[in-house]
Amino acid sequence: MKRYDIAIIGSGPAGLSAAINSKIRNKDIIVFGYKDFSSKLVKAPKINNYLGFHDISGIELKEKFEDHINAMNVELTYERVNNIYAMGDYFSIMVNETMYEAKAVIITTGIEYTKPLKGEEEFLGRGVGYCATCDAPLYRDKVVTVIGYNKEAEEEANYVSELASKLYYVPMYKDHYDLRENIEVVNEKPVDIVGDDRVQKLIMTSREIETQGVFVLKDSISPAQLVPGLLMEDGHIKVDRTMKTNIEGCFAAGDCIGKPYQYIKAAGEGLIAALSAVSYLDSKK
Amino acid sequence: MKRYDIAIIGSGPAGLSAAINSKIRNKDIIVFGYKDFSSKLVKAPKINNYLGFHDISGIELKEKFEDHINAMNVELTYERVNNIYAMGDYFSIMVNETMYEAKAVIITTGIEYTKPLKGEEEFLGRGVGYCATCDAPLYRDKVVTVIGYNKEAEEEANYVSELASKLYYVPMYKDHYDLRENIEVVNEKPVDIVGDDRVQKLIMTSREIETQGVFVLKDSISPAQLVPGLLMEDGHIKVDRTMKTNIEGCFAAGDCIGKPYQYIKAAGEGLIAALSAVSYLDSKK
Repeated sequence: MKRYDIAIIGSGPAGLSAAINSKIRNKDIIVFGYKDFSSKLVKAPKINNYLGFHDISGIELKEKFEDHINAMNVELTYERVNNIYAMGDYFSIMVNETMYEAKAVIITTGIEYTKPLKGEEEFLGRGVGYCATCDAPLYRDKVVTVIGYNKEAEEEANYVSELASKLYYVPMYKDHYDLRENIEVVNEKPVDIVGDDRVQKLIMTSREIETQGVFVLKDSISPAQLVPGLLMEDGHIKVDRTMKTNIEGCFAAGDCIGKPYQYIKAAGEGLIAALSAVSYLDSKK
Repeated sequence: MKRYDIAIIGSGPAGLSAAINSKIRNKDIIVFGYKDFSSKLVKAPKINNYLGFHDISGIELKEKFEDHINAMNVELTYERVNNIYAMGDYFSIMVNETMYEAKAVIITTGIEYTKPLKGEEEFLGRGVGYCATCDAPLYRDKVVTVIGYNKEAEEEANYVSELASKLYYVPMYKDHYDLRENIEVVNEKPVDIVGDDRVQKLIMTSREIETQGVFVLKDSISPAQLVPGLLMEDGHIKVDRTMKTNIEGCFAAGDCIGKPYQYIKAAGEGLIAALSAVSYLDSKK
């Protein structure tokens, strides 16, 4: 299997800055990101404090970033990373049914991740999952609920519905849903995932669903869920001034390591993380 | 005397980023800097790793910064700070014969300060000085040597030569010198400042000068000389993640706090330092 030098998780200013700086150092990189880079960025009406750009909109700044990474042939991989496992001298990066490998990892997943639902962490691996397409075979002829935080979750729901006896789809966003006819959309807020040894029920604001599986498909999960063993401090990934986390070879930058949540702070840290990752790789040679 | 909220020392990316962010927070600021902002920046032939600008020259990036600060009415004060004294709840900022006051200070003086000459620190205050115009009266009818690292030193030399019995000017740069006729230009490299209790001689590569005073007029002096009591670590100002130094109300950012010496890292830190200074000021209200 191909092993990248550096995997960068996230495509906000921290991730993109890490990407261009890793590229300048001739590292073989993979960047997991989104088409609009960062939902926070593109929603910003006006940015005045990114030195060099006065009175620029988030979308315009995103376009500047896009021109920059395109000019340097940095490509994004539009996939959602489910888990990253430290394997000693490399990392396994799980993306649904696909696995990637990298010698170093830079986490730049931002701060806007969704808080876990009640019961979500408790039943993780015992009925709760984050990758519907990977775990679908486990739910053949069973009742499955997909809680979708974005439109991409619909595709996974459609796939699982081919195997499941019944599929409930709980959308956490407003849109037109492209779902197969046998899927039942439930427009309620999930409150609690309950069960005995395994998941039995999803309790919602005004009704309950009997279900054996609950897939929670979010934009991003918390860093500690993403990278088991990653040390957090006050809700942020704990790093030193070189952006090193407690896991060797794993670095982090941007909003996920702490305030202030500002673009140029994130971009500066992305650079530091990249150079630290490069020097980590060099030390391993 | 007018007391500014924040004084920013330096006009590289860290200083300018600190300036715009302090301004956004409605702070009354004074920024001590240079016409070309940063000699390092304007000399850079090509910059590729400042996210948002691909393949830009140092001069072009300097112009982007200039447009940005102009649009925000951030003005620079083109004066060289000699010393900053922590006075408890404010700072005294000495600029030749003028004194400024600020409640908080952000040091962004970079790393390219000149190493002290042999004997320079030993005889500081005993014949060696950094401000010729301030100390000139002490050298009436005496022999004075001005070691000038930039063209602005010529003005100070001209002023001192009106009082001194003899003035030697040792230029550390190549240019046309606008000096009074009675000044003797010595094109030699200074090697050692020697004396007994006070300065007696300046030893140079192939000659010596008997002199009672030596003014060393550099672009910037080391942070520890600039701010007496400032804690350094491995040649850099020691700061925490919020850019706080060991002196209350004194923050630092950019190359002077450590590697990597990169523009966007400096700009990111300038932002953090500004927000930390703002929250320090708020806590004092």
